[in-house]
Amino acid sequence: MKVAVLGASGLVGREMLKVMAERNFPIDELKMLSGPGSAGKTCVYQGKEYVYEQASDSSFEGMDIVLGAAENAVAKQFAPAIKAAGAVFIDNSSAFRLDADVPLVVPEINPEDALKHSGIIANPNCVTIIAAVAVGGIAKLSPIKSMTASSYQAVSGAGRNGLYELEEQVQAYAKGEELVSKAFPCQIAFNLIPKIGDITENGYSKEEMKLQNEGRKILHLPDMKVSCTCVRVPVFRSHSISINLLTEKKISVEEAKDAIAKFPGAVLLDDAANNEFPTPLLTSDQDLVYVGRVREDLTNGGIALWCCGDQIRKGAATNAVQIAELLVR
Amino acid sequence: MKVAVLGASGLVGREMLKVMAERNFPIDELKMLSGPGSAGKTCVYQGKEYVYEQASDSSFEGMDIVLGAAENAVAKQFAPAIKAAGAVFIDNSSAFRLDADVPLVVPEINPEDALKHSGIIANPNCVTIIAAVAVGGIAKLSPIKSMTASSYQAVSGAGRNGLYELEEQVQAYAKGEELVSKAFPCQIAFNLIPKIGDITENGYSKEEMKLQNEGRKILHLPDMKVSCTCVRVPVFRSHSISINLLTEKKISVEEAKDAIAKFPGAVLLDDAANNEFPTPLLTSDQDLVYVGRVREDLTNGGIALWCCGDQIRKGAATNAVQIAELLVR
Repeated sequence: MKVAVLGASGLVGREMLKVMAERNFPIDELKMLSGPGSAGKTCVYQGKEYVYEQASDSSFEGMDIVLGAAENAVAKQFAPAIKAAGAVFIDNSSAFRLDADVPLVVPEINPEDALKHSGIIANPNCVTIIAAVAVGGIAKLSPIKSMTASSYQAVSGAGRNGLYELEEQVQAYAKGEELVSKAFPCQIAFNLIPKIGDITENGYSKEEMKLQNEGRKILHLPDMKVSCTCVRVPVFRSHSISINLLTEKKISVEEAKDAIAKFPGAVLLDDAANNEFPTPLLTSDQDLVYVGRVREDLTNGGIALWCCGDQIRKGAATNAVQIAELLVR
Repeated sequence: MKVAVLGASGLVGREMLKVMAERNFPIDELKMLSGPGSAGKTCVYQGKEYVYEQASDSSFEGMDIVLGAAENAVAKQFAPAIKAAGAVFIDNSSAFRLDADVPLVVPEINPEDALKHSGIIANPNCVTIIAAVAVGGIAKLSPIKSMTASSYQAVSGAGRNGLYELEEQVQAYAKGEELVSKAFPCQIAFNLIPKIGDITENGYSKEEMKLQNEGRKILHLPDMKVSCTCVRVPVFRSHSISINLLTEKKISVEEAKDAIAKFPGAVLLDDAANNEFPTPLLTSDQDLVYVGRVREDLTNGGIALWCCGDQIRKGAATNAVQIAELLVR
């Protein structure tokens, strides 16, 4: 396959390259596309030196797959040229996720949707991917009517600047120096920020609405109701989510645990009495979504659970490469 | 008043002393009672030197009020002697909270209960106090049927050792040294621990069940259903809680905000679009519970909100001193 990575020098772009190498993704030709900041700089990938090329409409000619790790405006700018070049655009931005002719895919859940594309396949939001894998097994037992979710999102979700900011604030704290906030609206070290993304008319942030809007599309549950609270936490790279879900048919705790354990991409780690539960540290730098604390919701007889997954990998890069693998097959 | 502080050298005991000084609590005589570890050591309080006295059954004679900042076993051990001495025991442990003849009091909510004591008044769990103040105004508009809550609990909840452990892990991280875990079951710096307290038969931890069990008693809502997930976060001293609540009568977002703003002990800070929201840092070392992100629950038409409050102060020490003030009045 001839593959271009759009945003190859960013946090997610670099992880996409790492994941492709790990999974032996078949690459005949590789282009590293970047913005003007990285253009002309070099990087080494699998022993070979590459030069970041500034993305332009002519960059995509002859490519089979373009993995998008750039922001919405960049994705929108280049989507027509990518389509015109006949490549498939697997895009991690939120620009096209809800478009009717764009499949939104978590390969463990709706792989069949990927093949219905008309040039663009969207990679879902990171919280949505992790939550979807965590509840995917339960959703196969009975449709999910509603979910209440509170997220605990790592700083990696804000890209490289988010990672730097936590690191710098912690180093400054240890030295007794002043802590400076630039990437986040206030200090993130030893703090929580209960707002991720712009606030919409109903008081929810865009990030919070993604779990409902994208979750409905991925799970094929157009009426699923989701009330989500997204919170940034001083953790480097795994996202965690506390979920209470209600299914149409009553599911027992044992049935839920069994469904999670059997679901591809999910791991049941649920023995809290013996301190066996998912944590961000345990689940960083790998591709599985860990689920624990599975119990009956005491308000409505649904299921409560806690899940963690690496935001950069399964929440972004790995999921996109898995979609590319569906196309190769 | 003749006041003894049981557990005076601990994190909460010291804060009780600080709060009494700040609020000019009328003290004629003060005893600093401790365990054998601190007994004989001295401390300075309001310019006067005190010696920690090892608590014994004879320590309480002549006292009017005993503020308990010790663990359950110590509270249970000395309660009979405190009662026999004719003092009122305002106890921060969970030993007596659910006893029928022990009032469980948040002064902003059920001050009248404090006067119905028979020697012991219990101070509620920290998450419960903070959540109760956050929802207290809404509960006055209509009884709460159910709450789904996910907590983000500071390390101060584990006492001084919890604070030390986060500090030591951060300092070790900054130096590139190994991080050691003693107070918590795993690393807390840059991590989350989704288990606080022992796990009970229904899979919830004791800490998680307190919000239902204690919340029912404080709010006089014996049928209120609560499903709570308690998570330790790498924050020093304010607890945060994401709450979704359902009232018997539909409450609008504006009504909810108005009720929160008017409720004593609560502050409405709710302009997320302009980055005005409660955070642990903002709410540390003060006595009010800050509430923001108030919006309609998209699953059931209830109310979703986010609240933060200092766990050592309103969540423990201040609430206990406020109860003592009710007795003085």
